[in-house]
Amino acid sequence: MGSLVTEPIHSIIVQSYQSEEREEPLNGDGFGVAWYPPDRSEAPGVFKSVSPAWNNQNLLSLSRVIHSRCILAHVRAATPGLPVAELNCHPFAWEQFTFMHNGRINEFQTVKRQLLRRLSDSSYAWVQGTTDSETIFALFVDIYSSLKGESSAEKMATAVLATIGSIESLLKSAGHTAGCDLNLVVCDGKSAVVSRYSTEGTMTPNSLYVHTGHRYSCEAGNTKLLPCEEPTVLVASEPLTPDASWHLIEPNHIVVVNELLETDIRPIAIH
Amino acid sequence: MGSLVTEPIHSIIVQSYQSEEREEPLNGDGFGVAWYPPDRSEAPGVFKSVSPAWNNQNLLSLSRVIHSRCILAHVRAATPGLPVAELNCHPFAWEQFTFMHNGRINEFQTVKRQLLRRLSDSSYAWVQGTTDSETIFALFVDIYSSLKGESSAEKMATAVLATIGSIESLLKSAGHTAGCDLNLVVCDGKSAVVSRYSTEGTMTPNSLYVHTGHRYSCEAGNTKLLPCEEPTVLVASEPLTPDASWHLIEPNHIVVVNELLETDIRPIAIH
Amino acid sequence: MGSLVTEPIHSIIVQSYQSEEREEPLNGDGFGVAWYPPDRSEAPGVFKSVSPAWNNQNLLSLSRVIHSRCILAHVRAATPGLPVAELNCHPFAWEQFTFMHNGRINEFQTVKRQLLRRLSDSSYAWVQGTTDSETIFALFVDIYSSLKGESSAEKMATAVLATIGSIESLLKSAGHTAGCDLNLVVCDGKSAVVSRYSTEGTMTPNSLYVHTGHRYSCEAGNTKLLPCEEPTVLVASEPLTPDASWHLIEPNHIVVVNELLETDIRPIAIH
Amino acid sequence: MGSLVTEPIHSIIVQSYQSEEREEPLNGDGFGVAWYPPDRSEAPGVFKSVSPAWNNQNLLSLSRVIHSRCILAHVRAATPGLPVAELNCHPFAWEQFTFMHNGRINEFQTVKRQLLRRLSDSSYAWVQGTTDSETIFALFVDIYSSLKGESSAEKMATAVLATIGSIESLLKSAGHTAGCDLNLVVCDGKSAVVSRYSTEGTMTPNSLYVHTGHRYSCEAGNTKLLPCEEPTVLVASEPLTPDASWHLIEPNHIVVVNELLETDIRPIAIH
Repeated sequence: MGSLVTEPIHSIIVQSYQSEEREEPLNGDGFGVAWYPPDRSEAPGVFKSVSPAWNNQNLLSLSRVIHSRCILAHVRAATPGLPVAELNCHPFAWEQFTFMHNGRINEFQTVKRQLLRRLSDSSYAWVQGTTDSETIFALFVDIYSSLKGESSAEKMATAVLATIGSIESLLKSAGHTAGCDLNLVVCDGKSAVVSRYSTEGTMTPNSLYVHTGHRYSCEAGNTKLLPCEEPTVLVASEPLTPDASWHLIEPNHIVVVNELLETDIRPIAIH
Repeated sequence: MGSLVTEPIHSIIVQSYQSEEREEPLNGDGFGVAWYPPDRSEAPGVFKSVSPAWNNQNLLSLSRVIHSRCILAHVRAATPGLPVAELNCHPFAWEQFTFMHNGRINEFQTVKRQLLRRLSDSSYAWVQGTTDSETIFALFVDIYSSLKGESSAEKMATAVLATIGSIESLLKSAGHTAGCDLNLVVCDGKSAVVSRYSTEGTMTPNSLYVHTGHRYSCEAGNTKLLPCEEPTVLVASEPLTPDASWHLIEPNHIVVVNELLETDIRPIAIH
Repeated sequence: MGSLVTEPIHSIIVQSYQSEEREEPLNGDGFGVAWYPPDRSEAPGVFKSVSPAWNNQNLLSLSRVIHSRCILAHVRAATPGLPVAELNCHPFAWEQFTFMHNGRINEFQTVKRQLLRRLSDSSYAWVQGTTDSETIFALFVDIYSSLKGESSAEKMATAVLATIGSIESLLKSAGHTAGCDLNLVVCDGKSAVVSRYSTEGTMTPNSLYVHTGHRYSCEAGNTKLLPCEEPTVLVASEPLTPDASWHLIEPNHIVVVNELLETDIRPIAIH
Repeated sequence: MGSLVTEPIHSIIVQSYQSEEREEPLNGDGFGVAWYPPDRSEAPGVFKSVSPAWNNQNLLSLSRVIHSRCILAHVRAATPGLPVAELNCHPFAWEQFTFMHNGRINEFQTVKRQLLRRLSDSSYAWVQGTTDSETIFALFVDIYSSLKGESSAEKMATAVLATIGSIESLLKSAGHTAGCDLNLVVCDGKSAVVSRYSTEGTMTPNSLYVHTGHRYSCEAGNTKLLPCEEPTVLVASEPLTPDASWHLIEPNHIVVVNELLETDIRPIAIH
């Protein structure tokens, strides 16, 4: 975990105090990491804290000893008005799934009630915190659970697109024009779907980069993706290294990473 | 504050690890204090923490320097399943009002949705945490705000009774038979209303004591209520001292403390 | 980790609020766990928190996903006057070694200075907190580092005995008669040494139990040590289960667990 | 307290994430406030937290209700290697005195032992944390306690200068050439002494500003010092407002604020 979370030159810990592609460079309102056990079929481990990532000794220790082939990490800049609490930190986990969100539903408080109304009783009861993010995940869980078919990257992609569509339709029907900014990550330990999205005509969504194709390593702060037969995919809000091979995802696209770690980038069409 | 919160022989700090009148003697899941400025017309100060009360250095320091004529203190034993977070600690504060709850709505998750549905939009948006307690307070705020007349102990008493009645009617209409245990405190800095209540036929509510009539002091751990012209009222789940003059409130009664610090104890009639 | 730390009927989490063999049943001033990676030759992972063990979500999550053949866990009841802080929580870790302490050097403040004077410059600079426990560990590190020979259970045992002897001689030369209570655990991931000790004539040391010989499992809260070829050793302040096979260690003895997980119990002779 | 700590345009909360006169703009490793009761003759209240100042709800609440004529506030950027813990947060308090430090003894670990050796037994035992800052305060307490005469600004100034001198002589005798950066604040609730100092030839000390002469107010984020008969003194690492009347203290000077709130700025002569 350390080679991803703590060691890179522009690691997520560095991003916690020196983000480069955001207006507000500080993400010091807590953090979280999730990782899947080696066979990636058990529920993930999650560690969250309201302390800034840059001074957390537990994170350093866990990063040193945890080895995993599927890791998520998040540093939070709390939306003004949403409280800083461990239960509001990302990643959120539900059974096999993990979820993170970079962005916000603008003026969330004005549509929170309608949004929660869409949740099933079980998802409603499952929500523990007060963020738009956790609510979006609960909505995803409901939509995903209603889909037929085996678990797969495609099923997750369908559910992510339907989640974004559901939110947009709700905002529209509520006369809410402030829009939303939905860079979402959903992962089940084997596949993952990541969106870069914001409501048409409102803002440019937060940046999103992908790095693929090689075995990953980190030496003296420089991540390397070495040519080898084992595929590797990194997805991040900002490149972890100065390396030019990070690919910027266009706004309103999703990245689908399947079980073979093949990536497919597709436009998001919301009707 | 120290003479009430930290110094008494059976202070709330002692109650945090050695409660005597509960099955579960431990209240180590955070705590909170609130106090009103000298003229009691400004909004109160609030200090909360998820740390146990018994080892909190800030509480010791605040208790030593804060002087107030109206103080609330709470130690929490989290209802299983409800997260330990600062935003779930009591007292809750809304404008001039403070609120604490000892007890629970049993099987809260099964009626949470219906309960929140009763809230006004503003109260709904105001709720930050996930406890039954904060929701009950939000319901009180809505009911109180709908009443006519000047702020007074009587108006608060009316709203507390209507809050309990509203919850019971909702539980009944939802077919919920697990009942609730509602020892509530509502205070505006000048008056206060405290209930000892549980649903008929379910359980005996948590204990509640009142101590009145004299000036309060605490010397070497013994609280004293000295005869003097300045009236004083203490209300507590358990007596703060071995002193025999603590009066046990009967189940299903409320204590109304008006601006003159006169107390009136009345049965709760829920129809 | 969960089968040891969170699931047993009388797990260390239960001991955090309901210890049975101590005068003071509460250990709510933080906790810590350490675990060695599978091959037990790397430095251990450590997770500590000042929150009570019983309500820590991270501990639950880590316990579920971490698998290790060598685990340490500790719940703290802070010695009055020693601050509650993450850096004062056990286990302490230094390179390959982990350390825990149940007990105290009585009137530690009066001999702290002399004790720290015995430390090497590097150990002195390494100490981060303010507990007697961390200082004792630093003393152990110095003594162990001065011994010749390969790392082994015997070398650790020699160093533990010399550490206890060094403390006793220092207390004696300082005219300190309050004594100490040194249930110590030192572990390098392969071997471990555990003492049950208190100064002659002062008090009975805290309890210490050993459970050996079989493969460990935990089902529905009951730990089981099944007959099998893989040896297992549990050492705990209190039995984790009602099982009668927990063996109480006599006062002033050490338990030496070597790399083959053979245990040897020896009297402590301090001259 | 709010008009000083939370409301100004460039308040210490803003300085916690956007310091302007430091290389490293972030002070997110905890914070603390201290305030003296109205008559300024009792020991101060202290509130500290390891959370960043910018998201602490307790700080907001305390700032709103605490009124004091003598307030200290500090945001911490932990010296690398020194742990983030509440007991390492400033201000430190000892009896009537409060103390804050902006700067560091460079390579503190290499001289920590010699520095602590200079402390009296009682100061040695009093130290709870691991910072250079707390040790410097303990040294001040020893020096101050050894001086004759009534408590006064002059006595405090003498002790501050002697403390700086003692540290420099120790560094010199230890062959330590890395120097120190000692912007110190000592306050007894009535008088205060503040230094801007660094070892000759090493670095420029952190900035220090003084604002004097008028009654203080803060409206819509702008502090004002209105002409009036009640004198007021503000001392801060960075101006709280764009107001031009903040006076930059020269390096190696101290500001002495006496009981009449008269300020005197003097060069520091270390021999």
